[in-house]
Amino acid sequence: MRESLQRFPRTIAQHLRHIEGGVWNEADEIYPDFSPPPQKGEDPFRTDNLPSDLGYQMKIKNGVIYIYPDKNAIAKDKPKDLDYPNIHTFMDDMNFLLALIAQGPVKTYSHYRLKFLSSKYKVHEMLNEMEELKELKNNPHRDFYNCRKVDTHIHAAACMNQKHLLRFIKRTYRVDADRVVYNSKGKQMTLKELFDSLNLHPYDLTVDSLDVHAGRQTFQRFDKFNAKYNPVGSSELRDLYMKTENFIEGEYFATIIKEVGSDLEDAKYQYAEPRLSIYGRSPEEWNNLAHWFNKHKVYCPNMKWMIQIPRIYDIFRAKNFVPNFGKMLENIFMPLFEATVNPNANKELSVFLRHITAFDSVDDESKHSGQMFSSKSPAPQEWTFEKNPSYTYYIYYMYANIRVLNKLRRERGMNTFLFRPHCGEAGAITHLLAAFMTADNISHGLNLKNSPVLQYLYYLAKIPIAMSPLSNNSLFLEYAKNPLLDFHSKGLVVSLSTDDPMQFHYTKEPLMEEYAIAAQVFKLSTCDMCEIAKNSVLQCGLSHQENVCFLGEDYCKDGPLGNDIRKTNVAQIRMAYRYETWCYELNLIVLAMKAEE
Amino acid sequence: MRESLQRFPRTIAQHLRHIEGGVWNEADEIYPDFSPPPQKGEDPFRTDNLPSDLGYQMKIKNGVIYIYPDKNAIAKDKPKDLDYPNIHTFMDDMNFLLALIAQGPVKTYSHYRLKFLSSKYKVHEMLNEMEELKELKNNPHRDFYNCRKVDTHIHAAACMNQKHLLRFIKRTYRVDADRVVYNSKGKQMTLKELFDSLNLHPYDLTVDSLDVHAGRQTFQRFDKFNAKYNPVGSSELRDLYMKTENFIEGEYFATIIKEVGSDLEDAKYQYAEPRLSIYGRSPEEWNNLAHWFNKHKVYCPNMKWMIQIPRIYDIFRAKNFVPNFGKMLENIFMPLFEATVNPNANKELSVFLRHITAFDSVDDESKHSGQMFSSKSPAPQEWTFEKNPSYTYYIYYMYANIRVLNKLRRERGMNTFLFRPHCGEAGAITHLLAAFMTADNISHGLNLKNSPVLQYLYYLAKIPIAMSPLSNNSLFLEYAKNPLLDFHSKGLVVSLSTDDPMQFHYTKEPLMEEYAIAAQVFKLSTCDMCEIAKNSVLQCGLSHQENVCFLGEDYCKDGPLGNDIRKTNVAQIRMAYRYETWCYELNLIVLAMKAEE
Repeated sequence: MRESLQRFPRTIAQHLRHIEGGVWNEADEIYPDFSPPPQKGEDPFRTDNLPSDLGYQMKIKNGVIYIYPDKNAIAKDKPKDLDYPNIHTFMDDMNFLLALIAQGPVKTYSHYRLKFLSSKYKVHEMLNEMEELKELKNNPHRDFYNCRKVDTHIHAAACMNQKHLLRFIKRTYRVDADRVVYNSKGKQMTLKELFDSLNLHPYDLTVDSLDVHAGRQTFQRFDKFNAKYNPVGSSELRDLYMKTENFIEGEYFATIIKEVGSDLEDAKYQYAEPRLSIYGRSPEEWNNLAHWFNKHKVYCPNMKWMIQIPRIYDIFRAKNFVPNFGKMLENIFMPLFEATVNPNANKELSVFLRHITAFDSVDDESKHSGQMFSSKSPAPQEWTFEKNPSYTYYIYYMYANIRVLNKLRRERGMNTFLFRPHCGEAGAITHLLAAFMTADNISHGLNLKNSPVLQYLYYLAKIPIAMSPLSNNSLFLEYAKNPLLDFHSKGLVVSLSTDDPMQFHYTKEPLMEEYAIAAQVFKLSTCDMCEIAKNSVLQCGLSHQENVCFLGEDYCKDGPLGNDIRKTNVAQIRMAYRYETWCYELNLIVLAMKAEE
Repeated sequence: MRESLQRFPRTIAQHLRHIEGGVWNEADEIYPDFSPPPQKGEDPFRTDNLPSDLGYQMKIKNGVIYIYPDKNAIAKDKPKDLDYPNIHTFMDDMNFLLALIAQGPVKTYSHYRLKFLSSKYKVHEMLNEMEELKELKNNPHRDFYNCRKVDTHIHAAACMNQKHLLRFIKRTYRVDADRVVYNSKGKQMTLKELFDSLNLHPYDLTVDSLDVHAGRQTFQRFDKFNAKYNPVGSSELRDLYMKTENFIEGEYFATIIKEVGSDLEDAKYQYAEPRLSIYGRSPEEWNNLAHWFNKHKVYCPNMKWMIQIPRIYDIFRAKNFVPNFGKMLENIFMPLFEATVNPNANKELSVFLRHITAFDSVDDESKHSGQMFSSKSPAPQEWTFEKNPSYTYYIYYMYANIRVLNKLRRERGMNTFLFRPHCGEAGAITHLLAAFMTADNISHGLNLKNSPVLQYLYYLAKIPIAMSPLSNNSLFLEYAKNPLLDFHSKGLVVSLSTDDPMQFHYTKEPLMEEYAIAAQVFKLSTCDMCEIAKNSVLQCGLSHQENVCFLGEDYCKDGPLGNDIRKTNVAQIRMAYRYETWCYELNLIVLAMKAEE
């Protein structure tokens, strides 16, 4: 976490240091750098403050980009000292953890501790529920509605709800029917001609014929779900309305996203972290995406941007878009290094990166990946066959490059990136293990149900989990069986997120819908809901300045000291319970380690 | 049903007539009269078209109001011939039904038929789900969002959500702080003084301190739930904001209701049927309520009004407000007869009644009522003791008076009233039996779970049930255990309603929240949701003119012939399935009756 500038709670750092016999002090705190919100009147797209060219050179070596002071150093292979990640260390750690989660006594121990956490919380609830409520009732001017809450997991291409998209399409047709918007094999088409070619009239279009909502048919069918991204089943409309690179330079997509942003601004207390895609098919993608972002001024104070990278090497390789996996990594990461080293030669990208807070790794986790990641796995440049690398392989190389990139950016005083992959929605338990080693926080985490050791580790390390029970309900797990309430009771750090409002939600306020349904089905108290909302702020990529404003001065501190009830509306009794319980679990381990010595 | 002008599906009327050896024709159709919506420019409060005085006299006799042509006829006890209800007939029918639902073979038969209906629907779903979807996709311009849906069960005093009420209170304080709004034991108080006396400042008020939302504490505690009607636990605020009779003549209550109405108008496709209370403590209540309605012009095209009568004779008797139950009935019904006979002497009430579509009977059904209703029960004027009469006793006397009133009103060409009691939310199964005999439709119906015979009867007679699973979830039954999906699968006519948005809902669109949660938890298809929405229109008190517009010309016809998919977005395949299945069940009985002969 330290090396890659991901966050790590200070309480557990203190305990770890204690076990090692040292003392933690505040200077040891790891913190990522997020761009502060623009000052009043400041242009979020300004380029006059970009730092100058460092003249560094880059080269990708075994899937990781290395930085050299100059061309000469490349020739001598003398990279700058940035403490590059070592794959063998990673392997050793991974193998250690693999053995750990399979070890009988550790499993039993974790199982009992988790069971204890569950029961303890039930007792806490019975004894203190009314007291918590009293605290909240006496807390003036703050309630669940005006607590900040962040949609910690949402895809930009599905961030509008189905009704919004429908209205938007109809509106564009009313205004733009005769505008040339599409290029089909060299033939330019107006919006009217495009709809005619699809045998559609937008006036007749309904939510049903739009057919982007996930129904019963998508359960356990991620493939069908992915097809739902095509309005009326037509990839042309997806291209026109939900892509950044098309004949109209992504204008419609930018407009509808800005409308979603303006709804968030109206709601005032709601934020979202939409993901935009980078595929790694070509290094041009970054410039194109940055151009789209700058050209259409896609900025909203209530949105923090993330980049998602689909794990689709196999498809690109099959179509011969890339010669090997190493090239895909280079396409994804090299432009970022270039823009970091010489921002003025990459102005739009540099501005765009200022607004990016994290990377996500996405795709259907239930697809079996074949080969395990091991020391015998081919290096990325040798990965020339069509098979997709395993989840862990992807995760390691993303982590490794983000780590080097973050170090370089910190040196330059630039914002750094979190790593927040989709993880544990389905598939093997090793996904959750890889993310435990590399990620700031994850999305989904459902499969923690199946590994008591990992679940306990996620608890101890307080790794936040952005959960989307409505999405799961349509894809992988029925609502009532969702582990959200169980995780929350035990004290895992969970937040609520929508994933894809276009596919899953019905109302105009998808995030509120998500909270309302969870509150009803799980019978959450106000304190529960505000705690989850607070978790969402802590998990997301809001800047230090914003966090101070939304959570209070001491938000970095763990436990009740870090909780300003006037801002969070979380009862101090709850915070004290969580903190004491957590420290108790950590101390048990410290004591056991001491006893062993 | 015929005698009291409640609706009855023609298909079952045809089958009943067939069993009797007769033939049904369209003239036999029973239809209630609802006031048509005002024409463009017409004042909904106009009084210039009220009919003249008939000079009839009324007298209450054994709890039922009788009508006499003149005073002379009263003396001779020669009432007008209106086919007054006969309590012995009711008793005989009730005893017959009581024996029927307890009979072993009938129970087995009903149980198997219901099980068969369930399984048959599952098969239908598997075979036709995609076909239904296809029908809907090919249906232009209509989807779930622009189908009419009616909130068939909502209480006016809780029709705004908690956030709306909070904002409203804050706004009144900003505008009206120095206005005298309250009279406390002769001392007049300004809004500021009132809040000071409660040690409250509205600026600090939050949803938590407002404390009107039902939480975990209300489960199985209807008493605690009722207390939630008091904002900040203060009956003064309830009186000021949620009552029609107070120092400001219910101005705030009227204003906030009109705001809810205007939100419905904005949503365009949503309607609501709020209930206003008449208690029966004094005959003045009607004039006061009508005055409030007319004075504040509480009219909204998207609202249809209902009257709810709480079953709280015991409380009134204990406080000596009424000498016996008969007096309470007289207080409730006599003013309606007077306004019907001589509208010009009761102008405001006559206008108000024009907007009323139905009566509801409300209270905690789980309270045990002691004595059964039987031929030995005292007549209402003899019911002088403090004990509350049973649910059935209340229901019978409401039914009896509504029946006479409806006959009189039809004679005069006035709108008639439906009887739509709360029934089967909790308590004895006899409640559902009483409503089966008397009601047009009911709210809740949860306890149909416990009686296969009654459930089958409700199915055969297609008696609509307004269900509120979110309300049940807070009070009587966990969401996942709600029988809504089961009833819907079998083909009972269910609609979705909110009951009390103030206590149960989180978002700005409570009815949509209700649909969204049901859709998610029960995995309803679009066709299911549109069928439920259609049911809600058929169940409610919208006029013939509105129904034609919302459901199509032939909405009175059962089965696919009555379904205009362009308006309802319900697949004809579904309608055909429902209709064929229903006729099959009815025919089984016809055949059995014939075989017996």
